[in-house]
Amino acid sequence: MAEATVKPWGETTVVGKPTPRIDAYERVSGKAVFPVDVILPNMLYAATLRCPHPNATVKKIDVGKAREMPGVHAVLSDADPEARAVGWYSPPAGATQMMSRLFDPHCRYEGEEVAAVAAETQQQAWDAVRAIQVEYRTQPFVIGMEEAMKPGAPLVHSGSNQVAAPREIKRGDVAKGFAEADVVLEETYRTSTEIQAPMEVHGSVARWDGDHLTVWDTNQGPFGIQSGIAKALNMPLSKVRVISSYMGGGFGSKQEAGKYSVIAALLAQKTGRPVRLFLTREETFLCVGNRQSHIMKLKAGVKKDGTLTALELTGLGEIGAYPSNASVGYQIGDLYKCPNVHTQELMAFIHAGRQRAMRAPGYPQCNWALEQMMDSLAEKLGMDPVELRLKNISTICQLENKPYTSTGLRECLTEGARVFGWKEARSRPKGDGPWLRGVGVAGGMFGEQFGPPATAIVRLNADGSVDLNIGAADLGTGTKTVMAMVVAEELGVPLDRIYVENADTGTTPYSRVSGGSKTVFGDSPAVRSAALEVKARLLEMAAEDLKVPQSDLVFKDGAVTAKGGKKLTIADLVQPRTRQMVVGVGRRDPDLVDKIVRPFATHFAEVEVNTRTGEMRVLRLLAVQESGRVMNLLTYRNQVQGGVLMGVGFATMERRILDSTTGKMVNANLHDYKIPTAKDVPAEVTVLPIDPHDTECSLTGAKGVGEPSTIPTAAAIANAFYNATGIRVTTSPITTAQILTLLAERKAKG
Amino acid sequence: MAEATVKPWGETTVVGKPTPRIDAYERVSGKAVFPVDVILPNMLYAATLRCPHPNATVKKIDVGKAREMPGVHAVLSDADPEARAVGWYSPPAGATQMMSRLFDPHCRYEGEEVAAVAAETQQQAWDAVRAIQVEYRTQPFVIGMEEAMKPGAPLVHSGSNQVAAPREIKRGDVAKGFAEADVVLEETYRTSTEIQAPMEVHGSVARWDGDHLTVWDTNQGPFGIQSGIAKALNMPLSKVRVISSYMGGGFGSKQEAGKYSVIAALLAQKTGRPVRLFLTREETFLCVGNRQSHIMKLKAGVKKDGTLTALELTGLGEIGAYPSNASVGYQIGDLYKCPNVHTQELMAFIHAGRQRAMRAPGYPQCNWALEQMMDSLAEKLGMDPVELRLKNISTICQLENKPYTSTGLRECLTEGARVFGWKEARSRPKGDGPWLRGVGVAGGMFGEQFGPPATAIVRLNADGSVDLNIGAADLGTGTKTVMAMVVAEELGVPLDRIYVENADTGTTPYSRVSGGSKTVFGDSPAVRSAALEVKARLLEMAAEDLKVPQSDLVFKDGAVTAKGGKKLTIADLVQPRTRQMVVGVGRRDPDLVDKIVRPFATHFAEVEVNTRTGEMRVLRLLAVQESGRVMNLLTYRNQVQGGVLMGVGFATMERRILDSTTGKMVNANLHDYKIPTAKDVPAEVTVLPIDPHDTECSLTGAKGVGEPSTIPTAAAIANAFYNATGIRVTTSPITTAQILTLLAERKAKG
Repeated sequence: MAEATVKPWGETTVVGKPTPRIDAYERVSGKAVFPVDVILPNMLYAATLRCPHPNATVKKIDVGKAREMPGVHAVLSDADPEARAVGWYSPPAGATQMMSRLFDPHCRYEGEEVAAVAAETQQQAWDAVRAIQVEYRTQPFVIGMEEAMKPGAPLVHSGSNQVAAPREIKRGDVAKGFAEADVVLEETYRTSTEIQAPMEVHGSVARWDGDHLTVWDTNQGPFGIQSGIAKALNMPLSKVRVISSYMGGGFGSKQEAGKYSVIAALLAQKTGRPVRLFLTREETFLCVGNRQSHIMKLKAGVKKDGTLTALELTGLGEIGAYPSNASVGYQIGDLYKCPNVHTQELMAFIHAGRQRAMRAPGYPQCNWALEQMMDSLAEKLGMDPVELRLKNISTICQLENKPYTSTGLRECLTEGARVFGWKEARSRPKGDGPWLRGVGVAGGMFGEQFGPPATAIVRLNADGSVDLNIGAADLGTGTKTVMAMVVAEELGVPLDRIYVENADTGTTPYSRVSGGSKTVFGDSPAVRSAALEVKARLLEMAAEDLKVPQSDLVFKDGAVTAKGGKKLTIADLVQPRTRQMVVGVGRRDPDLVDKIVRPFATHFAEVEVNTRTGEMRVLRLLAVQESGRVMNLLTYRNQVQGGVLMGVGFATMERRILDSTTGKMVNANLHDYKIPTAKDVPAEVTVLPIDPHDTECSLTGAKGVGEPSTIPTAAAIANAFYNATGIRVTTSPITTAQILTLLAERKAKG
Repeated sequence: MAEATVKPWGETTVVGKPTPRIDAYERVSGKAVFPVDVILPNMLYAATLRCPHPNATVKKIDVGKAREMPGVHAVLSDADPEARAVGWYSPPAGATQMMSRLFDPHCRYEGEEVAAVAAETQQQAWDAVRAIQVEYRTQPFVIGMEEAMKPGAPLVHSGSNQVAAPREIKRGDVAKGFAEADVVLEETYRTSTEIQAPMEVHGSVARWDGDHLTVWDTNQGPFGIQSGIAKALNMPLSKVRVISSYMGGGFGSKQEAGKYSVIAALLAQKTGRPVRLFLTREETFLCVGNRQSHIMKLKAGVKKDGTLTALELTGLGEIGAYPSNASVGYQIGDLYKCPNVHTQELMAFIHAGRQRAMRAPGYPQCNWALEQMMDSLAEKLGMDPVELRLKNISTICQLENKPYTSTGLRECLTEGARVFGWKEARSRPKGDGPWLRGVGVAGGMFGEQFGPPATAIVRLNADGSVDLNIGAADLGTGTKTVMAMVVAEELGVPLDRIYVENADTGTTPYSRVSGGSKTVFGDSPAVRSAALEVKARLLEMAAEDLKVPQSDLVFKDGAVTAKGGKKLTIADLVQPRTRQMVVGVGRRDPDLVDKIVRPFATHFAEVEVNTRTGEMRVLRLLAVQESGRVMNLLTYRNQVQGGVLMGVGFATMERRILDSTTGKMVNANLHDYKIPTAKDVPAEVTVLPIDPHDTECSLTGAKGVGEPSTIPTAAAIANAFYNATGIRVTTSPITTAQILTLLAERKAKG
């Protein structure tokens, strides 16, 4: 089904309407079986022994006592050849890719895997883990990125703590740009390490059937997990099946195969029984990835009229003990029109758990710097911050020198300012203490909207019900619902007669990992295309049966009607042919070659700050999102609210704390590591979708909304804080402790 | 992929070669999970109370005591509204279709369902079934088809015991034909009721997830079972998922949904827990279907030169207590060229378990009559029986007046006679007692080779391994293996890197029930077509990458090679595009409109008969089969051997015995009902495939082999028995008891 022959939707009946999730009942009633709920007959429970030191070598390991513990069926460590046979590859970072062992004798971070046990019960497995005796040789460690880059710092790997070559964006001539500027500002911004805390902890259940391995795993895309496991165990993909039809949340740390999956598989092989290995919440804090802390030195030049002339960024990111990608430069190069740009980014190894992509990886950090800088520039110029941004909007992607299919940033700013009451709020008195009020704004964009191939299969049953088969995982965002709505829109089938089979490498066609806000963008066109093929087939069949040209037929509400009024239902068409179903297969068209697809956002925040107690409250947050077509207004709003809340966490509380004397994480639990709870939700969160009617970006017109919704929140809050207090907070999060310190410093300075 | 653009295979590398099943290890090691092996957490076990009378009304049922039994969670009977809400439809027989209740208060055969129980253990369920107190009102019954058709016989349903209108084939003028004949013979043949006895007994495990029902069920085609359950429970198809990826044999009785599936589903709903309901072997003898006994009065006319002039059949089949189809006339109308044909067939209700399609339904019965008649005609004419058959071969389908794509009957007869040593064996002395030897031959055909649409999905992974997704069940015949071989042939992927996902309505595209010998015929072309689409896509990608025309490229052994020698592997092509896989979808082309596809067979038998003890031994059996292309020589042979063995059972031992005073089956178990065991296998079974290189019948050239292989066995044995003893056995089976009776009768006659 070529895109050219298909019209974009005009008025829609189903798509766009606020629609509860098709599996809402299963989700809220506990009927849905998530991987963590999978219980197989004869299943064993596993637990992992993890290194308690940030840098240590296993000198000696004695599993003898553990093996004799009650209920224990197997202990696995680096002493076992099957474990040593596993090559564990880090993701490539530039040209750097590293291989370690499954149980690497050199443990480079607190929590690295040392051994694992499978036993009849979870408690017996933990008891046995505690009975394993290990002699460690501890070594000096480094846990700060600036320290790590200093000569003589303890090395995480041989050579240097610098990960890969520096990343660079270079456009125009920044020296010339700064020379042309009327105002030049420079500031260093810092962000803290955030931990991923999805509702469902990471883990797998592994079962062998002969030489076929099935893994129930909580992840964002079973195909990537399948690849990872197959590579680690040196198996063909066709013998590894990964199922994650339900999964309990993922923000990036569930994109790669985890060692737990492979450990579960090896223990299952060793014992001849299915094995369940799920991490504890505490383990996830150490091992499954984080949003890296970043240091960003940003210099910006602007003319009196607000025109940006130059942006220069020097960045350093804290990558953890193994390579990963942690670039932040994208928005510097592309959010605003700027002829002269230079970014230089380094990443540093430290002796701590690894960074992994986390909801818009790099974007909130960069936004924290860039959008506070824009605020400072506006103040210096005496311009309204909204005006300054409007002044610098680009309708072309400068990094690729191609136009955007749609650029909603302008409308996000203007519509947002109108709905928020920006001007009025800016001009209101701040208050006369101790509570001061302020408002802030931040723009944002997300840059990953290319799309890989996706295939969808729509099976229309003879009774008019539908099975939709897609590879994509549903992270809880409502993917299944949106895809079912696309089918409902095209075929007129009610949503409760559409069953979605998804995210099972054994049974569904390839879809990319649900990350990069690409699921609706990449898969919904394939689903529409499959539904259109079914419709075309029905029209063909009806034309044959009624002996009229297809042009005289209309498909509506699950039936084909001819000009004269003759009507054939799906059953009329499908059953006489002894067909149980009509199968339609849809594929996403290749990426556009001459245009670029990007979602945009602008957030407006209002805060109040108590200058006596240091308390800050986010009073209201308006999230204006331009993500193309709104597919489901309800889940769109939900997803943006979630993004905002995560932004509030980034702005106000989340921070991994490593102890400088032991190198250990001191807040590796949900009591000491704070994430926003119901109490921390801004009193008012408003979601304002901007729909540019983008008919070019895809067959459905939708871009992605998951990540753009969390990008500008923190900077908008920081700008509102500044507006309220006159204090610029360059280091996230803006905690009460930091506020009190900054207030005290200002007082001290007089 | 239009058939016209695709060439038939020439020399093949994989297809045709004797190849062990791809899941042989799983099958023989017990690793394969058949529905009967499914154990779900929290599962309850169910058992069914069945009526012990052939005709009785439930006057009163008291389940109070059963409900109080230990471990019992639910009792279900006609007293429950959810059971009464089920409309249970019989298959249509002509214009007749009947609806009964799930637990019909009028029980019309021994074994009809009265109530069911779900309990913690199977034993508790049976104990509770025994505690149900039922007051029956028994009524007169009829258990013989001829008695049933007499006026005043007890009626099974109101009106008459005749099921539907008579079936008729009429061609030419039989009176004229008999007038032209030099020899006219007439004989009445009878066959006995055979019971289906697949290895895995019938049953289901049912689980609800919200309002979605999943049923693990042992069947020949999950889509038909899904329809049946959805209809019974008034649910959309999209909410009923039926899985039968492994199933332990089916000969026709696993084509329809069973009441057990619906009972399991209702009990699962009632208890909120998964429920397993599998029948005992004894229950299957009463309830799951049989090959009906048939009375066939056959009259045949033939000229001196052997030309058939007329065939006339009057048939009566014993259908059991509910409608079904039980026609036998097909071979009369089409096996041999004959200008004048008339068949008239009736079916009778009796108070016994229902007939269901059983491996070539109607064909072995008709063959029993027709091929013994051919033997008698040949004797009367003084012709060799092989010669008589060769004289009457038709290359067109007379019933449809269209040519066959290929007609292998002639070659089956001539090649078979040569390999068997027919002439020599015929002329050998019979022996001088008590052991006498004889040989016999019988031809046969199977008439159901139309094909419904089938869809197959081939997913080629980036590592060159393949997932094949098809709807068809594998009855143990090796369907998965054959389909994988088709993929291996086209894509050069080794078989052990091909995973087949099949027979799951939730995850696989529609395929017709595996019956009518249509699975390889109907589905393998779709699989080939899907593989060809994948190959075409790879060639496209390679042409793009190498910048050469596709015509310069060759795909072989999993790689594309250009004229100059440049080579791109699957990984080279697939991975750089961030594609995890290439998805190909294939559909079977529509049925041919101007030609007819039929498989043919001829069996040659040699027996020895002890005229003192009445013992008969089948010494050797040569099965010559023309089923188009042999896809897998090993499983082809296996399947034919199975067909032959089933024919031996039909010929020599299988018979349901109903007691005339009680109306109950007296041999409802594997001790008293005999099926052939290892001891009964002929000492020599030879399979001789005839391959006519049929390039028209389908994209793979294969017809069906499952059913044709069992059709002529019994008649060949009966003819051999006649050749040995001079006694014509018109009633199957030829048991020792019957032989002794016939010998005694002959002796009495002198």
